Amino acid sequence: SWPTMGRAMGLAGLLLGLVVVPAVLVSTNLRHGAPRTEAEPEPSGWELAADAVPEDSLWPLPQWVRTYPRQLQLAPSRFQLVHGAASSAGPSCGLLQDAFRRYYEYIFGHSRRRTWGRRPLAARAEPELFQLQVVIEAGDPGCDRHPQLASSEAYHLTVTEPVAILKAAEVWGALRGLETFSQLVHEDDYGSFLVNESEINDFPRFAHRGVLLDTSRHYLPLKSILTNLDAMAFNKFNVLHWHIVDDQSFPYQSIYFPELSDKGAYSSNLIYTPTDVRLVIEYARLRGIRVIPEFDTPGHTQSWGKGQKDLLTPCYNGGQPTGSFGPVNPVWNTTYDFMTKFFKEISSVFPDEFIHLGGDEVDFSCWKSNPEVKEFMKKQGFGIDYAKLESYYVQNILDIVSSYNKGQMVWQEVFDHKAQLKPDTVVQVWMANNYARELSRVTGAGFTAVLSAPWYLDYISYGQDWKKYYSVEPLNFPGSEEQKKLLIGGEACLWGEFVDATNLTPRLWPRASAVGERLWSSSNVTNLQDAYKRLTNHRCRML
Amino acid sequence: SWPTMGRAMGLAGLLLGLVVVPAVLVSTNLRHGAPRTEAEPEPSGWELAADAVPEDSLWPLPQWVRTYPRQLQLAPSRFQLVHGAASSAGPSCGLLQDAFRRYYEYIFGHSRRRTWGRRPLAARAEPELFQLQVVIEAGDPGCDRHPQLASSEAYHLTVTEPVAILKAAEVWGALRGLETFSQLVHEDDYGSFLVNESEINDFPRFAHRGVLLDTSRHYLPLKSILTNLDAMAFNKFNVLHWHIVDDQSFPYQSIYFPELSDKGAYSSNLIYTPTDVRLVIEYARLRGIRVIPEFDTPGHTQSWGKGQKDLLTPCYNGGQPTGSFGPVNPVWNTTYDFMTKFFKEISSVFPDEFIHLGGDEVDFSCWKSNPEVKEFMKKQGFGIDYAKLESYYVQNILDIVSSYNKGQMVWQEVFDHKAQLKPDTVVQVWMANNYARELSRVTGAGFTAVLSAPWYLDYISYGQDWKKYYSVEPLNFPGSEEQKKLLIGGEACLWGEFVDATNLTPRLWPRASAVGERLWSSSNVTNLQDAYKRLTNHRCRML
Repeated sequence: SWPTMGRAMGLAGLLLGLVVVPAVLVSTNLRHGAPRTEAEPEPSGWELAADAVPEDSLWPLPQWVRTYPRQLQLAPSRFQLVHGAASSAGPSCGLLQDAFRRYYEYIFGHSRRRTWGRRPLAARAEPELFQLQVVIEAGDPGCDRHPQLASSEAYHLTVTEPVAILKAAEVWGALRGLETFSQLVHEDDYGSFLVNESEINDFPRFAHRGVLLDTSRHYLPLKSILTNLDAMAFNKFNVLHWHIVDDQSFPYQSIYFPELSDKGAYSSNLIYTPTDVRLVIEYARLRGIRVIPEFDTPGHTQSWGKGQKDLLTPCYNGGQPTGSFGPVNPVWNTTYDFMTKFFKEISSVFPDEFIHLGGDEVDFSCWKSNPEVKEFMKKQGFGIDYAKLESYYVQNILDIVSSYNKGQMVWQEVFDHKAQLKPDTVVQVWMANNYARELSRVTGAGFTAVLSAPWYLDYISYGQDWKKYYSVEPLNFPGSEEQKKLLIGGEACLWGEFVDATNLTPRLWPRASAVGERLWSSSNVTNLQDAYKRLTNHRCRML
Repeated sequence: SWPTMGRAMGLAGLLLGLVVVPAVLVSTNLRHGAPRTEAEPEPSGWELAADAVPEDSLWPLPQWVRTYPRQLQLAPSRFQLVHGAASSAGPSCGLLQDAFRRYYEYIFGHSRRRTWGRRPLAARAEPELFQLQVVIEAGDPGCDRHPQLASSEAYHLTVTEPVAILKAAEVWGALRGLETFSQLVHEDDYGSFLVNESEINDFPRFAHRGVLLDTSRHYLPLKSILTNLDAMAFNKFNVLHWHIVDDQSFPYQSIYFPELSDKGAYSSNLIYTPTDVRLVIEYARLRGIRVIPEFDTPGHTQSWGKGQKDLLTPCYNGGQPTGSFGPVNPVWNTTYDFMTKFFKEISSVFPDEFIHLGGDEVDFSCWKSNPEVKEFMKKQGFGIDYAKLESYYVQNILDIVSSYNKGQMVWQEVFDHKAQLKPDTVVQVWMANNYARELSRVTGAGFTAVLSAPWYLDYISYGQDWKKYYSVEPLNFPGSEEQKKLLIGGEACLWGEFVDATNLTPRLWPRASAVGERLWSSSNVTNLQDAYKRLTNHRCRML
């Protein structure tokens, strides 16, 4: 999948031929988890300047890493992140310009104003790295587009004197490579910024690497969401699954139906205005992160009922309405009129090609109590199988959303209850009980799957539970090679019952980093001691 | 225990006689958990201005609360916290001056600059509360002293037009009463500050109400410790148990033995200098919080060995030293020379009358391997009972610390292993397995006990575990009335293996608040729904 692999490998060989060779080899590291495409060089290397092993700073571990002991120095006043001459992107590429500024900050932080070169005179002067040149190879770099499921995130990074080169087919790969480059640079005891000569060839194992945030159980201020997007970028996640509304509150401010949040939000301040939503989407886009909104129906919709009359099913008891409401009413045409208009808005507000339609945990008891619903069941010939009614409803919603040219994500029940799904529907597997079997079934039926079942990070326990999340092998389910290809990734879910701005970050990170590496790195990157070392450094850097 | 109880009750009667009586009684609340010393007034009361019940804001719930529906208004520009004319404290009492400033901020916050009186003209103008007068009744108010186990924290608060009166025997009670008063004031929708007329008579159920912080497993920056002291004051905790050093690091910078932190701290920055320690103690004192330092020996001392040669026991294997070290070496005189000098420093640096000497989890295996130790065991006639050696060591340390006129706290093993303890030793019960039996034994032997076993808050689990901590009844152990009196309180422990500045606050609070109310309020304050409502408000206010 990496178009310039041959050239890159050639360059590595060239590099080996050029370097001056002192007496003792300490370490030339070819990393485990990397497909070994050439023999390791003979022991004829260099002094290792520090006791640090450069790859110990990398998270998630790239697919192929080679580092050399020779270190280069970066001068904050001179070092530049620039567009390479051969790049299809240039200064008009706002996305990369923004990334250059951001990563310059990450690399040099508050150190910029320090006097550079305060090292003792006795210290050996390393050669200097002057630039990181970023080369986008596709004819159209895609600076103004949104990332997609099919976007390329592959990149190739070589760090040699005097300039480092980062090549990527698309800007999305360049973003990932910038993150990796920033992880390679470290500050020594004297405040000098150093990077080891290295070569990295990298691409994600899975295309869908998500974090679910729930802004209904507790409202999350914009700042928390943006901070989380930063953390996601540090871990090469590329999907924010925004579970924006639920029973408890409706913070999404709709353009067509403003009463939904006027009456369904916790308060008039605790909403996401259209401007807020655009900001989240753009902030995510600049980091190569898709925003998939979830508007979960027909269950989990109590808050919708406050601002939209006659949308939910009235529950009955002894032939009388109780005043309580159940799931969305699937029998009235007005429901589908509303949903048609509502999802028209959602389809235009959220640029991603997918919308998550929910469909989980539908409680049938209210439907069962309602005479009109029972009548409808009879007319449709559903008998007493309310899963059929659920599927009838979902089918209608799927058709509505399809008419807006959007792909669909759904929770596993929608598949389990035998709704007729479009072939490109993504089924999200969340039930912890034998999720391997469910993956097998979903992919066996030819549907694409995303796994979250083992990664419900709102569940907490004492100790290093990241190891549990890390040790999951997503492809460990019964199925053909074709089936395995249908598992396109996974999501770490942070449901919001016990999460708000006060604890979101320390609860999610670095625990979600374990999922990030599992979804990005090679399947044989499983050593817990090695991961512990790298994750410790990574956490420190994130802080 | 409240010297002016009679007078206070009289005042309540007076209050009832003075108020104007409109048509309908909505609520005059005499709170459960309060000893009813008089009949409730007949239904002949007032309108309740808002739907809020004033006591729903109180945490921990005072021993005796009566609130009235009549509300008074506080004008930020006019309202004053002042010394009452009858008080033995005046403007020279720095502790109270500081508390006045602090609570003024808590009450009015950032609202001070708002235009006061933006309420609609139609709104009824409440009468104004102009002052809170604080009266310290003891001849010497103790403004420059440190709080002690025997300090009085009782207070009596009456809020009536035009001035509220807070009476306390000592300044420590005044601090608790200021916290309660601040909890009574609330801001209405129009930005007005209101307080219901009320009378509160309050005192703690237990004298020792502690939070343990561990600054060895992870270093905690000073700011985290101070923030935690603020939170403790909001919950009327009065002891910071500072588990300052342990195996992992020695951040305490000793004046006599600076090498202990030079070599035993995680880094030269991650220490507590004498200035830092003084700051923590003073910040705590101003909030009525004692600081009990723990220097745990002979186990949990690996970090001591780095900066103090020949202090720890060399471990042997096959007749040869392994290079590893075990607990403090109990057989050399140099050990006791060191400890004599070290604890002389600690006794003078920390003003509290107690020092915690640890004594938990001593691993005997290294002692057992060491020929010199074995020889010493023989000479002393200890046989192979290494608990006797442990007690020998602890006894020496207890004697040293006693010689500096300090009381001692120890973990339960010191009692279990039959060290001869001074009668005033406080035994801290921490083992979860049948702690009631242990409390029974410790108090049965005549020793004072502090309970932590059910309150290890570093252990986390999904959901509302505060209910578990809240539902503990400390006195629910077999024993006489005399024994029950020997249980002087408890501590919420936050061990630091998985805690640092990034997660300390959201992990500890408001979970520790459950322990705070259990240790302060009356034993019959156990209703979880009621607690939930109040704790929700309290959390909001703390944020």
